[in-house]
Amino acid sequence: MEKKAFIGIDLGGTNMRAALVDTAGSIVEQIKISTEISQGAEPAAENLLEMCRRLMDRARSGQLKVEAVGMGVAGKIDPQEGIVVFSPNLPAMDNFPLGVKMEQALGIPVIMENDANVFGLGENWVGSAQDLSHWVGLTLGTGVGGALILNNRLWQGDNLGFSAEVGHLVVDPKGPRCTCGSDGCLESHSSGRALMEGVEAAVNKGKLVNGKLFDLWQREKLTAQDIYLCGKEGDPASLELFQRMGWALGIAISNIFMLLGIRHAIIGGGVSASWDLFIDPLMQTLRTTNKFLNAEQMVVRKSVLGDDAALLGAARLAWDFHRE
Amino acid sequence: MEKKAFIGIDLGGTNMRAALVDTAGSIVEQIKISTEISQGAEPAAENLLEMCRRLMDRARSGQLKVEAVGMGVAGKIDPQEGIVVFSPNLPAMDNFPLGVKMEQALGIPVIMENDANVFGLGENWVGSAQDLSHWVGLTLGTGVGGALILNNRLWQGDNLGFSAEVGHLVVDPKGPRCTCGSDGCLESHSSGRALMEGVEAAVNKGKLVNGKLFDLWQREKLTAQDIYLCGKEGDPASLELFQRMGWALGIAISNIFMLLGIRHAIIGGGVSASWDLFIDPLMQTLRTTNKFLNAEQMVVRKSVLGDDAALLGAARLAWDFHRE
Repeated sequence: MEKKAFIGIDLGGTNMRAALVDTAGSIVEQIKISTEISQGAEPAAENLLEMCRRLMDRARSGQLKVEAVGMGVAGKIDPQEGIVVFSPNLPAMDNFPLGVKMEQALGIPVIMENDANVFGLGENWVGSAQDLSHWVGLTLGTGVGGALILNNRLWQGDNLGFSAEVGHLVVDPKGPRCTCGSDGCLESHSSGRALMEGVEAAVNKGKLVNGKLFDLWQREKLTAQDIYLCGKEGDPASLELFQRMGWALGIAISNIFMLLGIRHAIIGGGVSASWDLFIDPLMQTLRTTNKFLNAEQMVVRKSVLGDDAALLGAARLAWDFHRE
Repeated sequence: MEKKAFIGIDLGGTNMRAALVDTAGSIVEQIKISTEISQGAEPAAENLLEMCRRLMDRARSGQLKVEAVGMGVAGKIDPQEGIVVFSPNLPAMDNFPLGVKMEQALGIPVIMENDANVFGLGENWVGSAQDLSHWVGLTLGTGVGGALILNNRLWQGDNLGFSAEVGHLVVDPKGPRCTCGSDGCLESHSSGRALMEGVEAAVNKGKLVNGKLFDLWQREKLTAQDIYLCGKEGDPASLELFQRMGWALGIAISNIFMLLGIRHAIIGGGVSASWDLFIDPLMQTLRTTNKFLNAEQMVVRKSVLGDDAALLGAARLAWDFHRE
C-alpha cells in the first residue's frame, strides 16, 4: 500500500528548493535550482511545477503518494487566496496567483505561508522545538522574520495576513530607521541588512577609517559574512555591531516572554551562523531586563535544521492542511 | 429550583469589595469595606469571610446557590496553591495561604487570580470585549497591569505565574527607571506613579517652578488626579506627561498587535479616567509605528465596566473553574 508523503517548497530570492518528505519528517529527496525570477513569475512557476512533477515521480517509485504541496515564500502571503501579495525579494511575484496556478496544474492542494512561519512549523515538528508547546521563533536573514507557536500550532491571530512580525517590534524608538519606515525596529538592529548599514554608518561617522572591514566596504565587496569573519578576528567595529544585534534581540525576546508568559525562543536564518558573536550580549540583556524569570528559566536555542527547517515546515503545512 | 451564582472579590490595597453575581453577569448585591491590612492578614481574611457569608445568605433568600468564589488580588498569585506570593500593596498578605483558608472556612472552591487578569475576564464576559475573541487589556493604576485573552480565554502561557505583564514591556531602553529595576518599561511612562515621578523630575530639572501643579507638589498634596485636572486647565508640564503616557502606550500596543496579529486593545484602571488627555497621542503613535495595519483596523476601547470589571471577572473566574 502507498504511504502518504508531502512536498515542501522553499521559495527564496536566490534559490528555489523542493523536497519530498515522508510523515516521519524525513527528506526522501530534494532538488534545488536558482530562482531566476528576472524572467517573470510564469517561468518561475513553471520551474516549480517541474520540480514538483519530478518529486511526484520519485514518490511513486518509492510507494509514496504526494497528497499536497506546502510552500514557504518570503513576503506577505494571502494563504486563503493562494496569492503572493507582496514579496520584496521576488518582486515579479507580487499579486501573482502562484498557489492557484500550481493547484490547477498538479491536481492536489497547494498551501502557501510566510517563510518564517514554515521555519516555525519545521522546528516544531522535527527540530529544536519538538519538546515545546509554546515558543517564539526568530529568523535572522537580510531582514528578521518570526513565528509564534502556541499550543503546538502556528498562531495566526485575527487572520490579518501577518503574525509574529518580530522584525518590526520597536526595541528602541531612538534607534536606526527601519526599511518599514519606523525607527528602532528589531530588524534595524539584528538583521544582515543592519550589519551592512552599521558598517556604512561607522564609515560615515569616521569611526571606521582603515582595516579589512573598511577595505571590503570601499571596494563594495562587503557581505554580512565578512562582517562576521572580521568580528572573529577581533575587529572592534564589527564586534560592536554584533553586540548591538544581541542587545536588541535580548530586549525583544524579554518583551515577548513577558507578554506571553513563555520562556523559550529559537533562532534560525542565515545570520544565526554568527551565533557565537551575539549570544552572550543577548543572554546578558535578557537576564538584566526580564525580572519575572530566572536566568536558568530563559532558554534560547539555535535552529538545528538550518536550511531544511523551511522545507520540512512547508511539508508539514501541507500535511496539517490535508488532515483538516 | 435554585439557580447558580458566584461571588467575585476585588482585593485592593485600599478597599476590599465583594459581589454576588448571577450567570447572566448581573451584580445582585455588592459590599465594600476598607482593607485595613495593617492589622495583618488574618483579620483581613476574616473580613473577607464575613462578606462572603453575608452574600451567601443573600443568595439563599433569592433562590440562588453560591457555587464558588473568585478573587482578584493585586500582586503575584500562585493560583494552584491559593497563595498570595507577593503583593506590593498588601505586604501583610505575602505568602499567606488566603485561598486555602477561605476554602476551608466556606466549604466551596475559592479561586485566585491577578487583578489585571480578572479585569480581562470581566470585560470579556459583559464589557467592552464581548464581541472579541483575541484582545489585550491594559489596566492603568499606580502601576500598569495586563490581561491577554486568546480564543476567548485568559492566556496563561507556560503557567509560570505571570502572563501579559504589559507594564514591564520595555518601550524605550533609554527611558526612566522602573520600580522593577529595568529602564524604560511601559509602567515607568504610563502609570499613576509615572505621572507623580514625572512632576518630581520636572521640578528637579527646573522645568516646573510655579503654578498650581508646583504648589500641590511643594505642599506634598499632589495626586495623579490633580495632574489630570491641571492638564485639563492647559498646564504644559502636565500635558507633556500625558503625551508621554499616550506615546508609550502606542509603542507597546503596536508591538503587541505586531507580535500577535491582533488589532483590539481595551484600557481600564483608575488612571484610564484621563482618557481624553492620552488617547490622541496614543492613536497617533499607533498609526505611525504599526505598518501592518491601517488606522481604521486598530481599535483601542475604554473599559465600560470601570470598577465592576474586577468583581464581575472574579465571579466569572469562579464560574469557569466550577464548569471544568
